[in-house]
Amino acid sequence: MVKGEYTLDSLRSSLVRQEDTIIFGLIDRAKFPFNSPTYTTLIPHFSLSLLQFLVHNIEAIHAQAGRYNSPEETPFFPENLPPSIVPNHTFSQFLRPAAASININKFIWKMYFHELLPIFVASGDDGNYAQTAASDLSLLQAISRRIHYGKFVAEAKFRESPKDYEPLIRAKDREALMKLLTSKSVEEMVIKRVEKKAMVFGQEVSVDNVVKGKYKVDPLMVSHLYKKWLIPLTKIVEVEYFLHLLD
Amino acid sequence: MVKGEYTLDSLRSSLVRQEDTIIFGLIDRAKFPFNSPTYTTLIPHFSLSLLQFLVHNIEAIHAQAGRYNSPEETPFFPENLPPSIVPNHTFSQFLRPAAASININKFIWKMYFHELLPIFVASGDDGNYAQTAASDLSLLQAISRRIHYGKFVAEAKFRESPKDYEPLIRAKDREALMKLLTSKSVEEMVIKRVEKKAMVFGQEVSVDNVVKGKYKVDPLMVSHLYKKWLIPLTKIVEVEYFLHLLD
Repeated sequence: MVKGEYTLDSLRSSLVRQEDTIIFGLIDRAKFPFNSPTYTTLIPHFSLSLLQFLVHNIEAIHAQAGRYNSPEETPFFPENLPPSIVPNHTFSQFLRPAAASININKFIWKMYFHELLPIFVASGDDGNYAQTAASDLSLLQAISRRIHYGKFVAEAKFRESPKDYEPLIRAKDREALMKLLTSKSVEEMVIKRVEKKAMVFGQEVSVDNVVKGKYKVDPLMVSHLYKKWLIPLTKIVEVEYFLHLLD
Repeated sequence: MVKGEYTLDSLRSSLVRQEDTIIFGLIDRAKFPFNSPTYTTLIPHFSLSLLQFLVHNIEAIHAQAGRYNSPEETPFFPENLPPSIVPNHTFSQFLRPAAASININKFIWKMYFHELLPIFVASGDDGNYAQTAASDLSLLQAISRRIHYGKFVAEAKFRESPKDYEPLIRAKDREALMKLLTSKSVEEMVIKRVEKKAMVFGQEVSVDNVVKGKYKVDPLMVSHLYKKWLIPLTKIVEVEYFLHLLD
């Protein structure tokens, strides 16, 4: 994102680009089978699974490298993250300070393992647990960034029509806020577009252009992911942001 | 890779799939501008750039999680990596033991920063240095895996026609080995295919199918990368493997 240049249009462009990252991430994770020891192996002396061990430690390194200085990044395990050890970049102050407290990653984590992973990876075990965990983490980060982008979207929507949002915020009327921020036509376009992207990015590409109609990740699974999880969770983040906007 | 199932065909399928990962990685890195502080910021108390700090530390975590138990994985900083702390998966013993000593990552690292990065990312600075470094690492790992796959390809080629290779290996005739292992027609197909994949994966996809002829990464850059670097370096790994094959 260009510094200080957030508009509803620029945010939508970024969300479109993030779709690519998420679909690439799904295709990348689907290279590996389920690899259950990634989630069940307990690391000696830690009560963490291999995946949790990897995510905890990699988030700590990213924190030292300054990742979470960016308002666009939200850690999965924010407890006890070390401080950044690099000179701070000054990010634009687009969001209100209360935004920093909105983090639904615990919910995203559960959704990922219970709802998403079982439907898009094949069963099996190829021994590549560390690579599987790294692939899970990249995908989780991409999904989390998309969902927490709701903060930016809410702020931009508020700036476009503060008079519509203000009374609902003051009344803490979640239902009316949800209704006002929802654009069914935009949602339907997103759902159609990600299905199509999954077809384009997940097809077999050969020199002589034969497309076999076989996809690396089921396009309907991708549209389902957006429809059932990514869009609704982004909207929940938007509502949370609105509710704190006048704090 | 399925355990113990390496054949020249299965290796070629894996290389085809790895093309997707590399092109997705290029597109992902190109989301960020050059972000020079990623490479020039010195981490206090370490004489490492932000990127080196991140790669050193993440490779250490991956090592603990068992990544480098896999003969398909080659670290960039193999010195002082901690041992794996997870139960070892038994990988197939397809390669000869000498394979473990072949590591041209120092060369790949230089190629990436001096030859590749300057031609495919835009200039500029958006402050996302940790994310840029993480994206560099994923891409470097994908490129390194592809190039070091030359070990598997060489072993499979040897098993298919040992009588052709043996005398050249005994004579340590690098030039003749290079000639024997080279298939110009396969190389040309790969170069064409990756250019096409870059067009397919890097296009703007919209619901109504308008393709704008604008790509997220220049397809000619991708074919150049394969032609000038990935294919020749894979072949250097193949020759190195052959030279150690009868040790």
